[in-house]
Amino acid sequence: MTVSPGAAGKIAWNPGNHVFPTPAALVSCQTPGGKPNLLTVAWCGNINSNPPMLSISLRPERHSHAIIKETGEFVLNLPSRRLARAVDFCGVASGRNLDKFAASGLSPFPVARVSCPGVAECPVNLSCRVTQRVRLGSHDLFLAMIEETMVDFGLMDRNGRFQIEKADLICYAHGFYFTFGKRLGRFGWSVGKVGRKHVYTRTDQKS
Amino acid sequence: MTVSPGAAGKIAWNPGNHVFPTPAALVSCQTPGGKPNLLTVAWCGNINSNPPMLSISLRPERHSHAIIKETGEFVLNLPSRRLARAVDFCGVASGRNLDKFAASGLSPFPVARVSCPGVAECPVNLSCRVTQRVRLGSHDLFLAMIEETMVDFGLMDRNGRFQIEKADLICYAHGFYFTFGKRLGRFGWSVGKVGRKHVYTRTDQKS
Repeated sequence: MTVSPGAAGKIAWNPGNHVFPTPAALVSCQTPGGKPNLLTVAWCGNINSNPPMLSISLRPERHSHAIIKETGEFVLNLPSRRLARAVDFCGVASGRNLDKFAASGLSPFPVARVSCPGVAECPVNLSCRVTQRVRLGSHDLFLAMIEETMVDFGLMDRNGRFQIEKADLICYAHGFYFTFGKRLGRFGWSVGKVGRKHVYTRTDQKS
Repeated sequence: MTVSPGAAGKIAWNPGNHVFPTPAALVSCQTPGGKPNLLTVAWCGNINSNPPMLSISLRPERHSHAIIKETGEFVLNLPSRRLARAVDFCGVASGRNLDKFAASGLSPFPVARVSCPGVAECPVNLSCRVTQRVRLGSHDLFLAMIEETMVDFGLMDRNGRFQIEKADLICYAHGFYFTFGKRLGRFGWSVGKVGRKHVYTRTDQKS
């Protein structure tokens, strides 16, 4: 580490994967006729809205990599706080020599649009179909269409609004799992408070 | 919405961008000779560890898209809670008709390895160089090498460990900004508690 001469109070760290936080998600997959497998991924995210797409990064040596490369299908499952230990376990254990669903006490359930199962205990399940694999070095980046979203019925209010605060989701940052904390504001709130004095002004929201 | 016959308690939602949470990051960029610009992105993440890489997704109509496409450079800046309002503002305003650094009270500062500035008030700044642009539909996915990481000096302890809990970072999920909440455990803790009875056993951690 060296102090940067260009910026007081800043220090040069290592040029690593310091995008925080990430989801802490369970990826489920299955070779036809095989046992379903589970894998924890922190390197995943939304990448396109129309059509809805997400990406996950996997090391080629991971057991699930071969399954997803072959089938072109997976489910991205978002776990709640009570599943944190199972999420961690599925990140360090390998499905090569273990039934991770059984070992972690999680339940596969059939989801729409893909033939591999989701994780029933996870409140959000995204059925995904791979469109492209980009080889990057240590990891392959799988780009995928989001074909269907399943959520726990109890998380939707009467108006069909998803109540994320009830899902009790977790995230991952710098080697630790965290809960969500305080809700700070809704997207657009900085320009929506008419009459309140602040330094910002409403501008073109389209670009 | 229809209740899935295959899973009790689950409901089919819309197949949208429901990967939660995401970072709430400020991307800074600059055309040579032009003014530096800022853009808020929630669709970004780590994608490769060796070499260290991240991705951001941008709509082609965003002002910053053209700048990054031309220069192949940007800085991904992670904001703390006190910057949440500025983060929101930079997500709805456009740099086409506004100096967003000036309007939001944020300060550009020179970072290593790229010629565009970072955001001094953000505790983490990642200098990035674009390696590939993948056109997906509504968004372009920019893949980039992480060339350097700058962090606030006060966030490193005496052993050079980054104290993420002091950075007070925020995240974004389903239209809202959140703080980090409770720290649940360190990666690997599910198999590291020797002597404590649980359903998991230590297995191959390499695959």
